Amino acid sequence: MTTVQDWQAKSWVASANEAGCGFPLQGLPYCSFTSEDNRSVRIGVGIGAEVLDLHALSGAGLLASLGGEVVSACCAAQLNALMGCGPEAWRMLRGRLLELLGEGVAAEQREMVAAALTPVADVRFGLPVAVGDYTDFYASIHHARKVGSLFRPEQPLLPNYAWVPIGYHGRTSSLVVSGTEVRRPSGQYRVAGAEAPVLGPTRQLDYEMEVAAYIGAGSAMGEPVGVTEAEGHIFGISLLNDWSARDIQAWEAQPLGPFLGKNFATSLSPWVVPMEALEPFRVRLAERENGMPGPLPHLQEGGDARSGVNLSVEVYLRTALMISDLLEPFRISAANCRELYWSFAQMVAHHTSNGCNLRVGDLIASGTVSGSAAGSEGCLLECTRRGVQPITLPNGEVRAFLEDGDEVILRGFCEREGFRRISLGECRGIVRAAVV
Amino acid sequence: MTTVQDWQAKSWVASANEAGCGFPLQGLPYCSFTSEDNRSVRIGVGIGAEVLDLHALSGAGLLASLGGEVVSACCAAQLNALMGCGPEAWRMLRGRLLELLGEGVAAEQREMVAAALTPVADVRFGLPVAVGDYTDFYASIHHARKVGSLFRPEQPLLPNYAWVPIGYHGRTSSLVVSGTEVRRPSGQYRVAGAEAPVLGPTRQLDYEMEVAAYIGAGSAMGEPVGVTEAEGHIFGISLLNDWSARDIQAWEAQPLGPFLGKNFATSLSPWVVPMEALEPFRVRLAERENGMPGPLPHLQEGGDARSGVNLSVEVYLRTALMISDLLEPFRISAANCRELYWSFAQMVAHHTSNGCNLRVGDLIASGTVSGSAAGSEGCLLECTRRGVQPITLPNGEVRAFLEDGDEVILRGFCEREGFRRISLGECRGIVRAAVV
Repeated sequence: MTTVQDWQAKSWVASANEAGCGFPLQGLPYCSFTSEDNRSVRIGVGIGAEVLDLHALSGAGLLASLGGEVVSACCAAQLNALMGCGPEAWRMLRGRLLELLGEGVAAEQREMVAAALTPVADVRFGLPVAVGDYTDFYASIHHARKVGSLFRPEQPLLPNYAWVPIGYHGRTSSLVVSGTEVRRPSGQYRVAGAEAPVLGPTRQLDYEMEVAAYIGAGSAMGEPVGVTEAEGHIFGISLLNDWSARDIQAWEAQPLGPFLGKNFATSLSPWVVPMEALEPFRVRLAERENGMPGPLPHLQEGGDARSGVNLSVEVYLRTALMISDLLEPFRISAANCRELYWSFAQMVAHHTSNGCNLRVGDLIASGTVSGSAAGSEGCLLECTRRGVQPITLPNGEVRAFLEDGDEVILRGFCEREGFRRISLGECRGIVRAAVV
Repeated sequence: MTTVQDWQAKSWVASANEAGCGFPLQGLPYCSFTSEDNRSVRIGVGIGAEVLDLHALSGAGLLASLGGEVVSACCAAQLNALMGCGPEAWRMLRGRLLELLGEGVAAEQREMVAAALTPVADVRFGLPVAVGDYTDFYASIHHARKVGSLFRPEQPLLPNYAWVPIGYHGRTSSLVVSGTEVRRPSGQYRVAGAEAPVLGPTRQLDYEMEVAAYIGAGSAMGEPVGVTEAEGHIFGISLLNDWSARDIQAWEAQPLGPFLGKNFATSLSPWVVPMEALEPFRVRLAERENGMPGPLPHLQEGGDARSGVNLSVEVYLRTALMISDLLEPFRISAANCRELYWSFAQMVAHHTSNGCNLRVGDLIASGTVSGSAAGSEGCLLECTRRGVQPITLPNGEVRAFLEDGDEVILRGFCEREGFRRISLGECRGIVRAAVV
């Protein structure tokens, strides 16, 4: 059974139909939340300016047709059990939610559903998924090239880039939900010219604007997932900020890669947008560039594979001064995921090509999303060329890297003529001073 | 309350008192197991040739004095809940087990305890701990130098080595318990001189002989753990084989470190030896070498800190031919953890120095343990100098890297005149052919 999606349908939740609303009936992203009058952690679904409480919906008997396993999974605190029910269950649940929230629903049911709505403004989000393993890729060739040019002007792109979706394992204990404050990390770094390193608060704190996919269907150890089946393992996507301390990272990263320069905090947006909601925005990834070889057959997607997403991502900065002056956040960069070099399907196929097993709830991030154009750099390292060319904000403040009190806000959305806007929401975090 | 340890005491379990037995009363390592006549997964304790079932012991009321939280934790399938009870509980439980298994126990209790014993030969082990994050360090300077000399003869040791306990995040989904077969991974590698890589079964499959510490007491995000308090966060240690595909690793590892060359499988020994059992074997780490600078103050241990362990580790190989000819495994190398450059306390202090939080059940591995002497190389990469100098086995077989059907066996033990031998048990794995 496939959900029949009506890309023009409206919801009886009025706020979902407003122009520009990123949470229309066609979106229905999942989250984990609590509210003032109900502190138990529940799964919710975003619709307009409301969160639909799936636990309450189950309690009202409105999900009974989906079977006991799905009903039980909808009563959990996080999405893992629901993802574990499998793609067919995801589609059925989405279909049922489209019915219940659509204009055609019977008045009696509509009343029961309305009783399970809470304004987004009144909820507190938690991490939507208990993540088992978190892998961070390096899928933007523009990011790889621009960062590479800072450290290896003679060879910005390493020879393996065109062949291997480069990735590494990140830290799961320090994944935090949007809105969590981020403490400036201390660590070892070595100032240029010095022989010995020093320990101190990082002087090069950065963000990385990323998109992340949650694995909803696992894979067995020893069994590679083919690139054409790979996307079926993905439940949905979110925004991710891979906070980075560039000075710590530069000093520690040889020979085994980033560690303390990254693992102090990684922020996730609260919403998980299901892959089905992205269907109208699927595109071929931008043409591989002239002269780029590869990939090997196991990573080749058909010429008509729409494995990319026309997904705009933006990063905004609001300094402490801007906050106190009530100024709007300033957009530093905007990029689009269609410019990634590797698709999530290719990342999944590569990840499992050696038999590494994926589990329900694993997180796979794109790496910094940067575009080819100026103004599309997904981190300050690129924007300011390692701090050498600081940016000037509209209020006259200057930034080479992040300062204490700075708030970083990632936003993501899909737009296409004739379709409703689908928002990924926001991923926010304010930098707090290091503990001295 | 501290357990009064009697390093000469005997157990009424006769096999525990035999000369050379590595599971005496003073050891009491923990495991997770099932048995033929009871398939439920339980926590056990090794004593002589027996496993003591803590669930059964709780059921008999013999742990009641420890309180409900500990009793409940002892009835779990893995050690996480028990570790979560905290160091004081660990000591109390160990004290109670020493009483119950010691010669002085009353006959009635002894009978009840005896009923909870199962021969080790009859049990099947599982992973003792549900690991949240797995970090692999690079704490052997001899390993770092010998491997470095293969790739950078002009600079075997990188400038950061003396300052930073180098580490990276590993994969938790593919942690497997000793005895699990390991499938030869396929992956991309590039043959010397070739322009393009190929996809195929690794031609350079290797083991890494490591020791790993389980975090039993976590730490909060943003709060560094001081080096003198760090060891209090460790519950116990095990053996770990960080299987590695050197050709895949070499091709993928720049710029973000090892990924598919490592994450297809990591084997763990079933036993977790509590830190208290290692007390007589604690030593200062070998002197820092002449001319080595550092570390910075936050990683400095007092001159009399016995942060090392006089722990012998050995790696044995048994080929398919040796198995069919009933030949004993051949010892390839032997090293000692007292030759590590960084202690587990320093690894924990470093890991948290940026505010990265540790959770109960996290795993921290030493990296390959190699010694200074010939014959103490902890991996084949070192032994055979990247395959250039293959080793010849007693039956005439030759190995540059591992072949299908090879069994790798790690063993670890502490020995000291006047004290009982404490074994870490074994970590075994047989290599199976790649799926083609």
